[in-house]
Amino acid sequence: MTQRRMHLVAYLKTGPTANYPGAWRHPESPLDDILQPERYEHLARVLEEARFDGCFFADTFGLSDTYRDGFATHLGRGGQISYLDPLAVLPLMARVTRHLGLGATLSTTLYPAYHLARTLASLDHVSGGRIAWNIVTSATDLEARNYGMDRLPPKELRYDQADEVLEACCALWEGWEPDALLLDKASGRFADPAKVRYAHYEGRYVRTRGPLSIPRSPQGRPGLMQAGSSDRGREFAARWAELVFVNAETAEDAAAYRADLSARMARYGRAPEECAVLPSLAVVIGETEAIAREKAEYLETLSDPELVLAWNSAMIGADLTKAQTEAEAVAAAGNTGIEGSRNRVLQVARQQGISFAEAARKPRGLLVGTAQSVADRMEAWFTAGACDGFILWPTISPRMFEEFGRFVVPELQRRGLFRRDYAGRTLRETLRGG
Amino acid sequence: MTQRRMHLVAYLKTGPTANYPGAWRHPESPLDDILQPERYEHLARVLEEARFDGCFFADTFGLSDTYRDGFATHLGRGGQISYLDPLAVLPLMARVTRHLGLGATLSTTLYPAYHLARTLASLDHVSGGRIAWNIVTSATDLEARNYGMDRLPPKELRYDQADEVLEACCALWEGWEPDALLLDKASGRFADPAKVRYAHYEGRYVRTRGPLSIPRSPQGRPGLMQAGSSDRGREFAARWAELVFVNAETAEDAAAYRADLSARMARYGRAPEECAVLPSLAVVIGETEAIAREKAEYLETLSDPELVLAWNSAMIGADLTKAQTEAEAVAAAGNTGIEGSRNRVLQVARQQGISFAEAARKPRGLLVGTAQSVADRMEAWFTAGACDGFILWPTISPRMFEEFGRFVVPELQRRGLFRRDYAGRTLRETLRGG
Repeated sequence: MTQRRMHLVAYLKTGPTANYPGAWRHPESPLDDILQPERYEHLARVLEEARFDGCFFADTFGLSDTYRDGFATHLGRGGQISYLDPLAVLPLMARVTRHLGLGATLSTTLYPAYHLARTLASLDHVSGGRIAWNIVTSATDLEARNYGMDRLPPKELRYDQADEVLEACCALWEGWEPDALLLDKASGRFADPAKVRYAHYEGRYVRTRGPLSIPRSPQGRPGLMQAGSSDRGREFAARWAELVFVNAETAEDAAAYRADLSARMARYGRAPEECAVLPSLAVVIGETEAIAREKAEYLETLSDPELVLAWNSAMIGADLTKAQTEAEAVAAAGNTGIEGSRNRVLQVARQQGISFAEAARKPRGLLVGTAQSVADRMEAWFTAGACDGFILWPTISPRMFEEFGRFVVPELQRRGLFRRDYAGRTLRETLRGG
Repeated sequence: MTQRRMHLVAYLKTGPTANYPGAWRHPESPLDDILQPERYEHLARVLEEARFDGCFFADTFGLSDTYRDGFATHLGRGGQISYLDPLAVLPLMARVTRHLGLGATLSTTLYPAYHLARTLASLDHVSGGRIAWNIVTSATDLEARNYGMDRLPPKELRYDQADEVLEACCALWEGWEPDALLLDKASGRFADPAKVRYAHYEGRYVRTRGPLSIPRSPQGRPGLMQAGSSDRGREFAARWAELVFVNAETAEDAAAYRADLSARMARYGRAPEECAVLPSLAVVIGETEAIAREKAEYLETLSDPELVLAWNSAMIGADLTKAQTEAEAVAAAGNTGIEGSRNRVLQVARQQGISFAEAARKPRGLLVGTAQSVADRMEAWFTAGACDGFILWPTISPRMFEEFGRFVVPELQRRGLFRRDYAGRTLRETLRGG
């Protein structure tokens, strides 16, 4: 029996601010290349050298102005913002790598199914079968207002619509048999039209006829990622996701999520191993524990409590200068906000014995230590069955990924917990093959 | 005074079939790379070596089934189809070139303004300011049905909506002052929020609030291309376009279009030189006139009249096995179809003294000759003021572009009609600087 191995996926955002609040101010954070292809190509190479399963770009289709009724703090101090459409750089990252999975966040609420299916199939071709779709239903009214709506539809409806979008996309992707292209110059038969079908999808919210004009891509359907924390979101993940990421401050939090998701998956006839559960994790690594602690403390000095509050306001969907308790935040967010982000603040409050309002001013927890102690902690979570690996989000980018690849990955490999080389060709093979 | 110079732009389509019907069967048409990045990178390099202003991908958001109520002929025999979303390959083409303009066809009827603005601004960053938007309002109900509609809105309404989409996109693109990013690590000021504004666009058909999360791109707004042939389409072009392409079988046809467009532009306070008018052109080049003719005749043997008819049916929006006259085609197309394509068939019928139904079975006219005689003809059109250059569409791709660059371009350069090197940095500078 082959040893079970971890999956590692990098959480990225275009721009320099997908990380620890204020970390863009670190002397080792490059800023002059945030709109340049080279930055993203370098990231891809670093992650492939480190043998990551893949990476994905988180995304918001707008500029957050949840905090103090404007974007002044969030934008002005360097909150987490997408400075480029990730789809403009993913092809470039595909081109400089051969194995790394490449994920895009695309909203089933804001984009038509045909567009999603066409985009993802095309990227899957260009990357040789390495594309993942991080499926979101969007969580802010500011995004809705950019797309001509007054506000988002109710969450339940958004997920019902997302189910339909997925069904429609699958019908489109399956519309071409793998051998439909003939390319027979002698006979003049370019394709076999009998091997291409209409989708004829007619749902309650989604309609599309098809077929795509795009032949079947290497993966057929892209790898499906999701981060559903709410009850309805978990149900969606249980049905569709091959990889979920989750905010968990403790191994118990992660294990509880894992158990819940497995029970839900069983109802869809799916085995637990058909979906990898990856808690998010950020690390600070030092040659000694003391150096690592000092590096983490220095990082903390860059983090401005008001920026953290604006950041959490954006994620939770409530202005946290007004909403002081969880209940007030829930009421203010209404139909919007990310339940996983609210849970993370709650977990911090519970763990540190502080109030919700205090926890909302704290930057995310970091795993601080030497390569050995970081690997110890990851191993403990992994072997306890709390997770199948980790989503690494950067503190200082790309520096953290470079260090993680140089120091922690070899330690995980030495312990037999992580691949030394890629076995599969496509992302799905990488995810299934360990 | 500097000499007036031609503009040359390549008409591309993902896949092998953006060319002479049946030319994919030519021994020199590569087919094994149609879904691979290398094909498109090679094309970009060839066009930049030939000093083309740029290239753009024509696009249809579906698989044409206008002909005989199905896609069997059009797909089966190699009609013009987009086998990949061009947005998946444009970043790759940008990466292997430094000056070539890169155009995407995107529909104002099928895509939200925010999405269009975000996509194009991102590509403009990644390409260093070389993106063009070929603006279409979509011309087929099959596309509408892929996007959840029963049929397209009326053409007048589509163009009214397109005007609003452009106004909204411009408001979004102008939302960031060029110097809004501060990136000041010491003070912690990432951006100056006073230099970023909401769009607050509220039209009759289009609403978007903004701002984009994307800083101002090198061109601010992408180069705007259009191919409006109808009265309303020309009016739209007169207001917005910096480059139009037109089907013209004779210099007189082109000159008439030019004069009409200039008169319309004057009403918007625009000078004629603010928009380049480029008729489309396909060439077959030989060492001698006789060799060129033989090459053209060989190409014609590959062209299947039924495929041509299916192709023209797709463009005109009417099944031409049923519609035998122009009037019948107009009636059958109703609200759909491309008037410029119908005009092209009419021009062929008029020129050759044949019926509309006969002309619809003829592949497009080719300019056949030596590099000298081809350049003579291009020079004649250009110096007569019938046009500002040409859209080159491929017969055999990429072969035709390679030959054109090797033989015709040096001849045009020798005559002082075409640039020897790029003077500008962005596409707009290239278009304005000659």
